[in-house]
Amino acid sequence: MCSLILLITSQNSPLSQAFTYHPSPTHKHITSPTYTSHRMTANVIDGKAIAATIRAELTNKLSSLPSDIKSRPGLAVMLVGSRKDSQTYVRMKQKACADCGMESFLEEYPNGEEVTEDTLLTKIQEWNQDDKVHGILVQLPLPKHISEEKILREVDPKKDVDGLHPANTAKLFSTSTHAGAVKLNWKDFTSIPFHIPCTPQGCIELLDRINDGKGIDIEGKNAVVVGRSNLVGMPVAMLLLHRNATITIVHSRTKNIESILQQADIVVAAVGRANMVQASWLKPGCIVIDVGINSVDAPDTKRGYKLVGDVNYAEAKEVCEWITPVPGGVGPMTIAMLLRNTVNSWERATGQKDQ
Amino acid sequence: MCSLILLITSQNSPLSQAFTYHPSPTHKHITSPTYTSHRMTANVIDGKAIAATIRAELTNKLSSLPSDIKSRPGLAVMLVGSRKDSQTYVRMKQKACADCGMESFLEEYPNGEEVTEDTLLTKIQEWNQDDKVHGILVQLPLPKHISEEKILREVDPKKDVDGLHPANTAKLFSTSTHAGAVKLNWKDFTSIPFHIPCTPQGCIELLDRINDGKGIDIEGKNAVVVGRSNLVGMPVAMLLLHRNATITIVHSRTKNIESILQQADIVVAAVGRANMVQASWLKPGCIVIDVGINSVDAPDTKRGYKLVGDVNYAEAKEVCEWITPVPGGVGPMTIAMLLRNTVNSWERATGQKDQ
Repeated sequence: MCSLILLITSQNSPLSQAFTYHPSPTHKHITSPTYTSHRMTANVIDGKAIAATIRAELTNKLSSLPSDIKSRPGLAVMLVGSRKDSQTYVRMKQKACADCGMESFLEEYPNGEEVTEDTLLTKIQEWNQDDKVHGILVQLPLPKHISEEKILREVDPKKDVDGLHPANTAKLFSTSTHAGAVKLNWKDFTSIPFHIPCTPQGCIELLDRINDGKGIDIEGKNAVVVGRSNLVGMPVAMLLLHRNATITIVHSRTKNIESILQQADIVVAAVGRANMVQASWLKPGCIVIDVGINSVDAPDTKRGYKLVGDVNYAEAKEVCEWITPVPGGVGPMTIAMLLRNTVNSWERATGQKDQ
Repeated sequence: MCSLILLITSQNSPLSQAFTYHPSPTHKHITSPTYTSHRMTANVIDGKAIAATIRAELTNKLSSLPSDIKSRPGLAVMLVGSRKDSQTYVRMKQKACADCGMESFLEEYPNGEEVTEDTLLTKIQEWNQDDKVHGILVQLPLPKHISEEKILREVDPKKDVDGLHPANTAKLFSTSTHAGAVKLNWKDFTSIPFHIPCTPQGCIELLDRINDGKGIDIEGKNAVVVGRSNLVGMPVAMLLLHRNATITIVHSRTKNIESILQQADIVVAAVGRANMVQASWLKPGCIVIDVGINSVDAPDTKRGYKLVGDVNYAEAKEVCEWITPVPGGVGPMTIAMLLRNTVNSWERATGQKDQ
């Protein structure tokens, strides 16, 4: 991706638009799609390439700083316990920081069962006070004897780059309809003066960068979110609403999920059930963002398993207009958004951007 | 209502069920409704009577306290400025407190333009520390030079009986899907360990008390909320979701509002546009909760105006199964829920109920 990083200067430059996409050879890539209602093969939303573009934008920003800016963005990561998957995620996040010119600080507590809440709270308080730290990330899940809620609540909301602090949640779920409320520009997440969770933010960012960077107009679209988790379903529904979509949230107790999905212009699947959403449930020409990452048996593969989404991809791509693959769709966007949140936080802390 | 107050002992006693409703003579009242899809005349949801029942329940509770409970619930009300409507609302709330055996404390700042934020913040801090105060209500709107957000954020979340503090908002919008989250019993609001805004809570309470106190099963129903305000639309949608309805939020940018409403089993209209929702938009047999209170010209009346809801009531009641009138539907529930929130707060503060 080196050449990409060097070429792209900013999201909106003609140069960057020309190089925004880097589809892998197995993905069909149509540059000028037209919406049709007959059967077709969907355009694949190449999350890996879009995430690389965003990371390149951040790298570029950090490689040409104003001379009075001496600091670099810093992300502090807390890793409690010895889960292999958590270790992998943390390493990926640290590498991503280094790749784009950011600092990262890791605090590991490998004996997860022995660490106390107080120890973790003290470390977070230290980071809250530390000028070199602009983002704080607590890798979840925490061991059972630790209250996640208590730990996350301790993070300074301004450094809460995961967007999980109640102060940030409350702001995300406010429609600012009250007297004197400041109207926010939801078309530019980097202008939002609080932190938005990374995966949901990544979903919307994909919608804004498909179609050769022109994006699709979310306003007035029927958007259906499958799943109501705190981490994805709820915040992505809220982001779609802020962009003036009409939103429906369906879940395990919904009785008529197929007929509801058949009305959807945009489907976000975030339920964690392999291949649950069938092609016959989808409206021809719709857009599918598949957040699910499910491991299913694949005896003919080397690893014995493969990762699939919540949507039956092979069939769905014959019906919809745009679809994210799994892996390589939403997944890579999460880290890109984490980096961007940290850079935003640093820009605010160093006075480069309004609080 | 005196005889009602004396007769009713608790929400679930056979006696209270027999006397739960007190429909006014102009309201048709069917005791055993059956759902049909043909044209019919709706059952009127008598919010005035249901609110009176709830207030009677609270009165009864406070008139027979355990001997070790010496305190009474106390509501502190802040009134800034001299708006006539605000004065009326505050008087109604104080009278409601007195009627059911609660204390209320009024702090008035009639010269709204001269009062400073600091003065208001200091008073709230005093109330936060005052053991006699279990609920704090800031009558909105505040004068323009005062930040509503700043004032509301100062209220101790435990005393925030209006449910507007970010800590309470964040809890309401959490689906508790994260590891270790406590599952809440959303079928009993008085068991929820934080404060829920009064008007949305009142809407759900109506659904739970129609049908001669048997209520209707919200789970799996298609619920459509018209309007996305912080005060009503958003929280009522969230409460419906907590009760396992499938929720859709429509608003001014929604393109196909009629066809969406035609799928709705439950409609909550909270948009503030007189008679906007037409009967032809409703599914026969649906339930309509009309939160709108709009003043329209009525030259033939003494006052020259009348209050109407967001739904064309006269026509809609020929299509739906249940409908709230305006006035006399949702309106009276707001104060009843405010009183109940304050009593909950007092029960927690005095150890009668878990924190």
